[in-house]
Amino acid sequence: MPTSYHHGNLRAALLAAARERLATADETALSLRELAQHVGVSVNASYRHFANKEALLTQIAADGFGELRQHMLARLQSQPRADATQRLHLAGEAYIAFAQRAPGLFRLMFSQKGRFESDEAFRAASGAAFGVLVELAAELRGEPLDAPGAMKLAMGAWSLVHGYATFVLEGYLAALPEAMRLDPAELVQMLRLP
Amino acid sequence: MPTSYHHGNLRAALLAAARERLATADETALSLRELAQHVGVSVNASYRHFANKEALLTQIAADGFGELRQHMLARLQSQPRADATQRLHLAGEAYIAFAQRAPGLFRLMFSQKGRFESDEAFRAASGAAFGVLVELAAELRGEPLDAPGAMKLAMGAWSLVHGYATFVLEGYLAALPEAMRLDPAELVQMLRLP
Repeated sequence: MPTSYHHGNLRAALLAAARERLATADETALSLRELAQHVGVSVNASYRHFANKEALLTQIAADGFGELRQHMLARLQSQPRADATQRLHLAGEAYIAFAQRAPGLFRLMFSQKGRFESDEAFRAASGAAFGVLVELAAELRGEPLDAPGAMKLAMGAWSLVHGYATFVLEGYLAALPEAMRLDPAELVQMLRLP
Repeated sequence: MPTSYHHGNLRAALLAAARERLATADETALSLRELAQHVGVSVNASYRHFANKEALLTQIAADGFGELRQHMLARLQSQPRADATQRLHLAGEAYIAFAQRAPGLFRLMFSQKGRFESDEAFRAASGAAFGVLVELAAELRGEPLDAPGAMKLAMGAWSLVHGYATFVLEGYLAALPEAMRLDPAELVQMLRLP
């Protein structure tokens, strides 16, 4: 275990250690002191990068939106011949897959009552992720990005996949027999598109 | 403030006091001790009705699903001439209105990781609320209640309104200019129906 870090490395190591914990535990189980111990530095050294646990979680949530955006874009790139309707469907499926792969991170990103909204980097990252759906909706409707119709369609698509992702994550679908369960590919077809 | 209660009254009084707190505060702010104090009894008296705070919250969450069901049914009854499509839309709008009127209760009802699922009364109440949408979906598709298509359509409808309700509650739509915001009546129209 390293006992000294270059500036950027320690920051990255703390974030990575926190992400690792979040994969199996709830955020309440995280402490900056324990993370510092885990990466082999004093808690004071960790304070040089994150003033407190909330600052660390804000960064993780912002990074999460960056990854969600990349995850959707990668899915779109993997299907270069998809038409506009299929592209919106693919992005929606990617959204659900992201939530399923990283439930702790996903819950943190959508923390209650605009918890991280005062952070500029967080707002930029969540806006850019939403922007993927807005672009696809605009493409589908043949409208500019700032047209109300494109924005509303993107919001509808986001609502649909977000609600579904929540049910999957919180185990609401697990009680149903397999044949009754709506799968992500069926879900995205339920959006009425122009 | 009463200092003695009949059995059922104290139970109801504790539930009412807890609901009142949840209207403005998070559940972490609740304690059985403080609720007992508020209604004027000892914490031991409150234990005769609820073994602990979690038991009280489980009952509140189950009651919440009962109210959600009633709220959707009342909306349907208020529009007796609505056709099957409109009825599903009305139930969806009622779902969103319920979440907006009682955000603390709504968050509690959808607590993470099946928190209350081991409670039979909770499962029955949440199942009955979901059942309203399943019935409407079956009516719309002209299928029996246990047909996979009806169940899946109900799940899609629930996902759509649940995701949207979450965004409204957590302030994600507040940042958008009014003209860009999808309203509940527009949202429910986005479901592709048979």
